[in-house]
Amino acid sequence: MSKNNKSNRPKARQPRGFVDRSASDIRAVEQMVARIKAVFELYGFDPVETPLFEYTDALGKFLPDADRPNEGVFSLQDDDEQWMSLRYDLTAPLARHVAQNINDIQLPYRTYRAGYVFRNEKPGPGRFRQFMQFDADTVGAPSVTADAEMCMMMADTMETLGIARGDYVVRVNNRKVLDGVMETIGIGGDDHAGTRLSVLRAIDKLDKFGPDGVKALLGAGRWEGGKKDAGDFTKGAGLDEAQTETVLSYIAGTAIEGNDGVAELDLIETLVRSAGYDEARIKIDPSVVRGLEYYTGPVYECELTFDVTNEKGETVQFGSVAGGGRYDGLVQRFTGQAVPATGFSIGVSRLMTALKNLGKLDTTSLPAPVVVCVMDRDADSLGRYQKMVQALRDAGIRAELYQGNPKQFGKQLQYADRRGSAVAVIQGGDERAAGQVQLKDLIAGAEAAKVIESREEWVEQQPAQISVAEADLVAEVRKILARHGN
Amino acid sequence: MSKNNKSNRPKARQPRGFVDRSASDIRAVEQMVARIKAVFELYGFDPVETPLFEYTDALGKFLPDADRPNEGVFSLQDDDEQWMSLRYDLTAPLARHVAQNINDIQLPYRTYRAGYVFRNEKPGPGRFRQFMQFDADTVGAPSVTADAEMCMMMADTMETLGIARGDYVVRVNNRKVLDGVMETIGIGGDDHAGTRLSVLRAIDKLDKFGPDGVKALLGAGRWEGGKKDAGDFTKGAGLDEAQTETVLSYIAGTAIEGNDGVAELDLIETLVRSAGYDEARIKIDPSVVRGLEYYTGPVYECELTFDVTNEKGETVQFGSVAGGGRYDGLVQRFTGQAVPATGFSIGVSRLMTALKNLGKLDTTSLPAPVVVCVMDRDADSLGRYQKMVQALRDAGIRAELYQGNPKQFGKQLQYADRRGSAVAVIQGGDERAAGQVQLKDLIAGAEAAKVIESREEWVEQQPAQISVAEADLVAEVRKILARHGN
Repeated sequence: MSKNNKSNRPKARQPRGFVDRSASDIRAVEQMVARIKAVFELYGFDPVETPLFEYTDALGKFLPDADRPNEGVFSLQDDDEQWMSLRYDLTAPLARHVAQNINDIQLPYRTYRAGYVFRNEKPGPGRFRQFMQFDADTVGAPSVTADAEMCMMMADTMETLGIARGDYVVRVNNRKVLDGVMETIGIGGDDHAGTRLSVLRAIDKLDKFGPDGVKALLGAGRWEGGKKDAGDFTKGAGLDEAQTETVLSYIAGTAIEGNDGVAELDLIETLVRSAGYDEARIKIDPSVVRGLEYYTGPVYECELTFDVTNEKGETVQFGSVAGGGRYDGLVQRFTGQAVPATGFSIGVSRLMTALKNLGKLDTTSLPAPVVVCVMDRDADSLGRYQKMVQALRDAGIRAELYQGNPKQFGKQLQYADRRGSAVAVIQGGDERAAGQVQLKDLIAGAEAAKVIESREEWVEQQPAQISVAEADLVAEVRKILARHGN
Repeated sequence: MSKNNKSNRPKARQPRGFVDRSASDIRAVEQMVARIKAVFELYGFDPVETPLFEYTDALGKFLPDADRPNEGVFSLQDDDEQWMSLRYDLTAPLARHVAQNINDIQLPYRTYRAGYVFRNEKPGPGRFRQFMQFDADTVGAPSVTADAEMCMMMADTMETLGIARGDYVVRVNNRKVLDGVMETIGIGGDDHAGTRLSVLRAIDKLDKFGPDGVKALLGAGRWEGGKKDAGDFTKGAGLDEAQTETVLSYIAGTAIEGNDGVAELDLIETLVRSAGYDEARIKIDPSVVRGLEYYTGPVYECELTFDVTNEKGETVQFGSVAGGGRYDGLVQRFTGQAVPATGFSIGVSRLMTALKNLGKLDTTSLPAPVVVCVMDRDADSLGRYQKMVQALRDAGIRAELYQGNPKQFGKQLQYADRRGSAVAVIQGGDERAAGQVQLKDLIAGAEAAKVIESREEWVEQQPAQISVAEADLVAEVRKILARHGN
């Protein structure tokens, strides 16, 4: 162990952009994930899981973070010099898994998975570099019937979680439609791939920067905050005015005809409407593009439309909690053969925050444990306390022996109190000799303390403390717990 | 998307030492983790979680892998040049968490967590570089009553998981006893820290190499396989013969008196015995040392004692599935103030393998979904199939629309069959006109196929296929599922 002179000590802090999670958040996420899983299983999906590392070449680089180290991915070199990266989503690793096992997998392959992904983003408030996604995918599904199913499953998931109709909407578009528009304005073909990507990313910022921001990003570029020299400058796609207007009128919803993508959207609409999902739940919307580069057809996202107050005090819609689309090329990258696929990711923390806002998660913890206090520290007494704890646990009652320094009895009661325990069990030498234990009802005690004025009165009344036979410990503790609804 | 000429294609494979997980393994682990969690919660522990990355200096280097890159840890440099590492266990990050929040945390702090850890080990068969641990710790617990509790909780966990008494044993020792022995043979003090570590690691190999192997490792060193020049040579601790004999007689169980550590072990024994745990369940055993460097007092591990056949065809005991100990110095590394703590880790995959061996995990999957086949591909028909799927799901029946290429009907039935589906739903134009659907009982069909000889006979009999009114779809599907116990 290192010496403990202060200069040698490491500082206790998380790396930038990483956070610890509390018991209530962990339990809320578990509850939410279990409910989502039930929907996915009803739809015929089964779990599969890939490791957190992939070879860098297998993951590919599809993130919109070209300006970050390793284009937004955490990478390191293995001892055989091969580069490995932490997954930045759950889709690219699934494509690798399918390509690797293509001869054993029964297609169409319907799977789901929840897990952490990592983005080497610039850390900032509320911007985390490790976060959980929950994905569902159908691989080997050539028809947009599969995309329609994903949209319906998103809607069902929201309702299962208690989000009311009208508080969410699944918006659907098709990258192919936009590809047609881009061809029209002369930026089709391999030479313009970079420009097309910049156009996609500009449109994807509609929610964040509004039409003027998108216009700037389609043209020369945009200053942070919208004002010149106010902050960083983001280079734009470099479109001229006429090209920019065409794109803007497309995302404003001007109808486009004679395009494969439009026919696919029509079929999706027919399917979801016949299954009973109206426009308030699943809506065709040309402004949806999704930021990831690998999408090839329908793209869809689920937005929560109720109002929240943002960190600047403004009233805004909660926004996107899930999104996905069709990625027909991802397995083909490995195999050379077309394996069409579609799927989506739920942003688990964002969705949990939304559900907490709506009061749809039961964030009450388990009842706090009964605390057995340590009055005497000889081995016999300790053994006897241990037996009491054991008896309570055997009866299914959460219980613990006080494990801190037992010298100050007050600290033990303070601990039990702060922990939220309903009962403290106390046995000193006198009680032991009499075969008794004292049970302190900490909840009633706290109530009583509010009305009792003096210390003398307190000592005299010993509020909510009773003496019972040691043999009746479990039964008597149960009575107190029942009184407090546990 | 990259061009698909073969030379440019990445190979679909996992990084060495990393694996994908199947649906049945995932469900088995979920089941097991839920049961363990119930025990830990009964004991008064609550969840907390830390991120997968920590600053390298905060983690410290306590692994017995001094010869591996970065001493067995995966590390990378952040864009501000600080080194970060993936956690190699769940204990060092907990110590960081406690040190960081020491003013807000109510001590003793009883927590549990399950999560992936990473070891930069030499990959090999059955040796994984990402694996799951499930830990419980009490921080701020100066007395060995807390260590005794950990041992009892380990035993209870095994029994909750269905491992019979006699098939497991928790073995307990105390590093302080061994420290006393090492002082006796003249290797106390800072100058001999390296030698002491080598002695610990030699003893930790008793299960693997037997007493002769340990003897070699305490002395000059050991050849792989036990024979000179047969393989790699591991340098030993360099003890002389007398020193070696003292250590060997200690681990053989020779009583040692007048040592703090011995008194602590006595108290642990008293406590567990009074709580009803006999020597078959919790046993004091001087050969337990644990490989990690940060332990300072009691160390304990849980072994499964039933026989299994190893990869060489030999009959061996299953071995260790969990272990831990007291680490009074880990929080102090950060704060300079003593915060005594104790806890253990369960090796989740190993324990799951053991439970599978014992037949104690329910590895049956969910019933496979009902498959609605696609006969006609116009939008109206697809919409109608979609409605059927919807109706089944609304009734709580797992169901899916066939999402593969629908051109070959035979492939659809083959898919449903291989998936294990009990029912396929079929509706062509004629049935639609008549308001009927065909239900194919795939399980009865497979039975019938065994006894039907010719194709003609098959077509004539149409085994296990019935025509029902479309309005009765759900009720009739339910009947078939009930017949097969779903």
